[in-house]
Amino acid sequence: METSTNKPHYTAAVVGGSGYTGALLAELLQRHPSLELAAVASDGSAGTPVARALPRVRVDLHFCAIDEVGGVDAAFLCLPERAAAPVARRLLDQGTSVVDLSPDFRLGLTDYQEWYGEHPHPEMVPGIYGLPELHRDEIRGARLVANPGCYPTAALLALAPLAPLGLTDVIIDAKSGVSGAGKTPNERTHFCTVDSDLVAYGVSGHRHYPEIAGGLTRLTRGSASGDQTASGDETASGGAGAPATDVEHASPALTFMPHLAPLQRGIEETIYVRARTLPRPDELRALFDEWYGEERFVALCDEPPRLRDVVNTNSCRLFAMVDRRAGRIVVMAAIDNLMKGASGQAIQNMNLMLGLPEEEGLS
Amino acid sequence: METSTNKPHYTAAVVGGSGYTGALLAELLQRHPSLELAAVASDGSAGTPVARALPRVRVDLHFCAIDEVGGVDAAFLCLPERAAAPVARRLLDQGTSVVDLSPDFRLGLTDYQEWYGEHPHPEMVPGIYGLPELHRDEIRGARLVANPGCYPTAALLALAPLAPLGLTDVIIDAKSGVSGAGKTPNERTHFCTVDSDLVAYGVSGHRHYPEIAGGLTRLTRGSASGDQTASGDETASGGAGAPATDVEHASPALTFMPHLAPLQRGIEETIYVRARTLPRPDELRALFDEWYGEERFVALCDEPPRLRDVVNTNSCRLFAMVDRRAGRIVVMAAIDNLMKGASGQAIQNMNLMLGLPEEEGLS
Amino acid sequence: METSTNKPHYTAAVVGGSGYTGALLAELLQRHPSLELAAVASDGSAGTPVARALPRVRVDLHFCAIDEVGGVDAAFLCLPERAAAPVARRLLDQGTSVVDLSPDFRLGLTDYQEWYGEHPHPEMVPGIYGLPELHRDEIRGARLVANPGCYPTAALLALAPLAPLGLTDVIIDAKSGVSGAGKTPNERTHFCTVDSDLVAYGVSGHRHYPEIAGGLTRLTRGSASGDQTASGDETASGGAGAPATDVEHASPALTFMPHLAPLQRGIEETIYVRARTLPRPDELRALFDEWYGEERFVALCDEPPRLRDVVNTNSCRLFAMVDRRAGRIVVMAAIDNLMKGASGQAIQNMNLMLGLPEEEGLS
Amino acid sequence: METSTNKPHYTAAVVGGSGYTGALLAELLQRHPSLELAAVASDGSAGTPVARALPRVRVDLHFCAIDEVGGVDAAFLCLPERAAAPVARRLLDQGTSVVDLSPDFRLGLTDYQEWYGEHPHPEMVPGIYGLPELHRDEIRGARLVANPGCYPTAALLALAPLAPLGLTDVIIDAKSGVSGAGKTPNERTHFCTVDSDLVAYGVSGHRHYPEIAGGLTRLTRGSASGDQTASGDETASGGAGAPATDVEHASPALTFMPHLAPLQRGIEETIYVRARTLPRPDELRALFDEWYGEERFVALCDEPPRLRDVVNTNSCRLFAMVDRRAGRIVVMAAIDNLMKGASGQAIQNMNLMLGLPEEEGLS
Repeated sequence: METSTNKPHYTAAVVGGSGYTGALLAELLQRHPSLELAAVASDGSAGTPVARALPRVRVDLHFCAIDEVGGVDAAFLCLPERAAAPVARRLLDQGTSVVDLSPDFRLGLTDYQEWYGEHPHPEMVPGIYGLPELHRDEIRGARLVANPGCYPTAALLALAPLAPLGLTDVIIDAKSGVSGAGKTPNERTHFCTVDSDLVAYGVSGHRHYPEIAGGLTRLTRGSASGDQTASGDETASGGAGAPATDVEHASPALTFMPHLAPLQRGIEETIYVRARTLPRPDELRALFDEWYGEERFVALCDEPPRLRDVVNTNSCRLFAMVDRRAGRIVVMAAIDNLMKGASGQAIQNMNLMLGLPEEEGLS
Repeated sequence: METSTNKPHYTAAVVGGSGYTGALLAELLQRHPSLELAAVASDGSAGTPVARALPRVRVDLHFCAIDEVGGVDAAFLCLPERAAAPVARRLLDQGTSVVDLSPDFRLGLTDYQEWYGEHPHPEMVPGIYGLPELHRDEIRGARLVANPGCYPTAALLALAPLAPLGLTDVIIDAKSGVSGAGKTPNERTHFCTVDSDLVAYGVSGHRHYPEIAGGLTRLTRGSASGDQTASGDETASGGAGAPATDVEHASPALTFMPHLAPLQRGIEETIYVRARTLPRPDELRALFDEWYGEERFVALCDEPPRLRDVVNTNSCRLFAMVDRRAGRIVVMAAIDNLMKGASGQAIQNMNLMLGLPEEEGLS
Repeated sequence: METSTNKPHYTAAVVGGSGYTGALLAELLQRHPSLELAAVASDGSAGTPVARALPRVRVDLHFCAIDEVGGVDAAFLCLPERAAAPVARRLLDQGTSVVDLSPDFRLGLTDYQEWYGEHPHPEMVPGIYGLPELHRDEIRGARLVANPGCYPTAALLALAPLAPLGLTDVIIDAKSGVSGAGKTPNERTHFCTVDSDLVAYGVSGHRHYPEIAGGLTRLTRGSASGDQTASGDETASGGAGAPATDVEHASPALTFMPHLAPLQRGIEETIYVRARTLPRPDELRALFDEWYGEERFVALCDEPPRLRDVVNTNSCRLFAMVDRRAGRIVVMAAIDNLMKGASGQAIQNMNLMLGLPEEEGLS
Repeated sequence: METSTNKPHYTAAVVGGSGYTGALLAELLQRHPSLELAAVASDGSAGTPVARALPRVRVDLHFCAIDEVGGVDAAFLCLPERAAAPVARRLLDQGTSVVDLSPDFRLGLTDYQEWYGEHPHPEMVPGIYGLPELHRDEIRGARLVANPGCYPTAALLALAPLAPLGLTDVIIDAKSGVSGAGKTPNERTHFCTVDSDLVAYGVSGHRHYPEIAGGLTRLTRGSASGDQTASGDETASGGAGAPATDVEHASPALTFMPHLAPLQRGIEETIYVRARTLPRPDELRALFDEWYGEERFVALCDEPPRLRDVVNTNSCRLFAMVDRRAGRIVVMAAIDNLMKGASGQAIQNMNLMLGLPEEEGLS
């Protein structure tokens, strides 16, 4: 690892290293020039060598227990809902900067309770929502950032430029690979279930729905006030200045329908939008150029995005068109659910929080 | 083959046997109790044994040239657009019953010319549209039937029960396997292109759009007149009493967006519908039960349909729900694009045309 | 189901219906003209409708407990090792004909104990080995038949014709789909483990090794005595006249190396053979023609067999060539591991045991 | 790109940029710290932007014609057999260092003529065989290196440590992904052919057979003379001191049997070996440690290698075991056919030829 005295240098812990996102974070951190992987915590694996469980991570570390994590500059929490918040509280109190990949700080309290039950630290929600291309300024100053879910990342990046048009109806038809369902083996992730099949799921309600709805509310509100960074007027200290309140379900109408496809990685979302104003094609392109023209990880393409162009990268590729016949806009977004949809974006957020170049460790 | 004197017995030809649909038709016909595979025509393979090119077809036949086909009771045309119509004309004049799997008789003349160019026999269009569950009576009397495209089959079966609600907005997000793109190798069908990828295509306009739009018009018209079988008031002789006229693009707004998934076979369509009336869940179910309660090849399911439950069958499995929050209906349909979406439905149509039991050779 | 008075008619039970083989047996039995599916037993599912767990099985049955199975003419045991033998004992005592798909009756006692531990009924082993193309006469008279493992089925069908050449060295390089690893979800069967990967497994010893070795010994012994049906001189009553004794490891040298490929179904084995005599190509073909010329389910092909030509069938497709340069024979075999390698072959065996046409219910 | 005056810096051309290996070379070169991608040649694409055809290659270059390539320090030839040799001749005469990925310099003349026909420059064959872990010293001094085929790379790396044991019989059962068959679409590479299938091919003789046989001869010869680097006694100037002569087919007996699996990338070879001496497991391990203990790109593993651990890397992972029962050694090798089996190894060779660190641009 780099230890030159000129460069900023921080120690980092991955808390919850047994799933896909924790493993990928450890892998990314070992190549990060300014963050040093100092600990990987997993209660189930405590005491065993990290390199044995994660063959792509060649570090001389043993898993520690989650309670043992401490004294690091940066922590990434890859824990289940309700388990993350207490760990975040403890590490923040030690002065650690925390990116939380669980849903614990993504939602307003009412939504959280509806979808996940009692919140262990209701005073901490909602946190700063860590979608850098939309909320960069708030993330910069934050000590705790809620890393977005994979589906909401793609959806909100696709929809943000359209907010000024006055969104009235949004349908997100999402197709995801199996890694989004996690590493735990079950019937749904068995090869013989997934291969040669494709099926919708979560039709009675997916947990990413309120997160997308909340994000749309922020976009709409920001747009209404003429402020591009939707919540730039809000304070940005950890756990306080909350970009999200509970969702105002009124506007726009929103349907989110995820499908499972025989893929390991990747999310493609085709999004059908009605807005008060239907732009011309050049106006539509201008809206995306304005938002993303300077962005390193988001690109507007001339053709529908392919998963193969984003898998193993932190990129989101977008495509937008006006369906004049039907009077709507169609936007497509493709990301790697484990990178831009989870671990890559978490690094991007931490880079911002620590004042490092945003793309460090991600190219 | 069955030759008992009591049973009806017909000779059948497959015209165009080098693609997926022709090969599957030949395979289905060799097991059909009342239809005997008498000829398989392919200009490129004329003179070679059928069993060599189609290992699943164990018949003692050689491919003949397309011009040589004649004297059969039934013919299935698996030819490109504009090549099918002249062959259909010739065989009809010989008294052969014809199911055409090309687009030559599916559209009104204006739509055909917009999407395919000049029609070789404009006086013959549109033909009887061969979706048995919607147009059974007309098919029964017909000598020429236009077998629907795969995407329209799933879409129109899913949407027909909703017509009485007054459709105002329809979005069809379709996911298809690779066999829908045909047997000809190209970059798009190369394993290394398709595997681990998923992408939208045909965004500037897919040829199945006008066919779906035309079907919706028929549904709407039929519904308006209180007639369940949309075009039952039309005459049903071959090539005459046309169920479709050119599409009235006014109603409903329609978007059709196909995607290619890493699958060999199968189509899943998730369809987002707005209607003048939003039904209760029980009312929605009743609409589907009324249409399909007695149908052998269409079933309403309690969960989103899986491709694995329809592949290699002539079934269409449907799922319907009310998304009250967003004020719309979501319907899903799954079919095997080569069976119910092509060759299986062609057999079903021919059975009806010849007065055979509709499911013969398909169970 | 058929109940005409002229046809033989038997009731059948599937004991152990929660895995792949039990489900497929139930599916095959519902289409069998002379066997009626009368019971499906699964202790874990007792009381629930069969059709709910097995959507392809449209019978009006509820799962019963294994202990409740009785009074049927035929039983198929799809149970783990050591659980099958006591059930077999009980049903045989009731006069039921039993095909056991577990390893309980496939091996001699010494081999069984080495690989599986104590045998619950040592007096019953080995049973009649149910590879019909090799041991048809013994199976015909048997009341208990040990259905072979999937790998041994392909291997022994490929090797049997070569026995007269004096096998000295046999290497079986096998590639299998994931269904061979069973339905229970675990890390090994997770889509994200299997997809885009291929790996050898069981390198320290696979349980099918002694079964293949035992089969080779039978082949060699039969061949030495000039008797094509290897153990035709042995008595054939259930559980007695044992075709297999414990393996004489001396001849030939045997290596069996299974690999897991990203496939749902199918086994391909490429087998490298040295023999005391190296035949000419025409002599090699003659050996296979002699064994399999009249067989319905085994075919010698002119090209390496493809899995797609055997999946969903009860066929074994073989290819054999002389590698004169290296002085050996290469044989390839392809089967569907769940059909010819399990449930299909079990039906074939039961047909023989009950005096039914061997292929009934399998075409 | 780096242009600091302290670092060595060379211009490089990819000649033949329309296939997989050329595209991957261009991608690797744009990240290489000491080699600068100066030209990509493709007669079919001359004049069009490289970045359009190769989206992962973000360079401001247009394809040039092959004849236009000149004045570069290094060239990688990705051309068909017989097309490469004249280009190599021309560039060598200009002083360019050449790694040729075609078979033109891999074989002795007799073998070449048997498998490929007349050689355009018979005076140039055989070239230096570019397997760095076996022939590093010769490669270091060479101006022209024949980059090995993908199958031979895995086979020879697996077998080299065994040469001192006196190889008598070698069987290579290889499983490859589809990219090994090239980018040109044909029936064999169509998704619907490959998916859910697995089949042997090239059974009458694969072009990599003589290359493997030649490599074995070199290994055996080197081993007999007690010289680890098989052909270290030969001169190493470009196109002269030939490590390979035509194969002496006598020793060892060799069978090579490739299979196509439903994978994009990766080769797994399971190799069955008889030798005059059968080592103990610790002796076997010592042989591999001696060869590869210090190697960066070759590792001996404790378990059979998985493709997922080598795909997208330049690594070869090996596993070796003694099958005492059968009296033989089993070795397994896994590589990415496009990286260590082609483009990655080509970079490794060029690094050696130019005196750069061997792993530059490959980590």
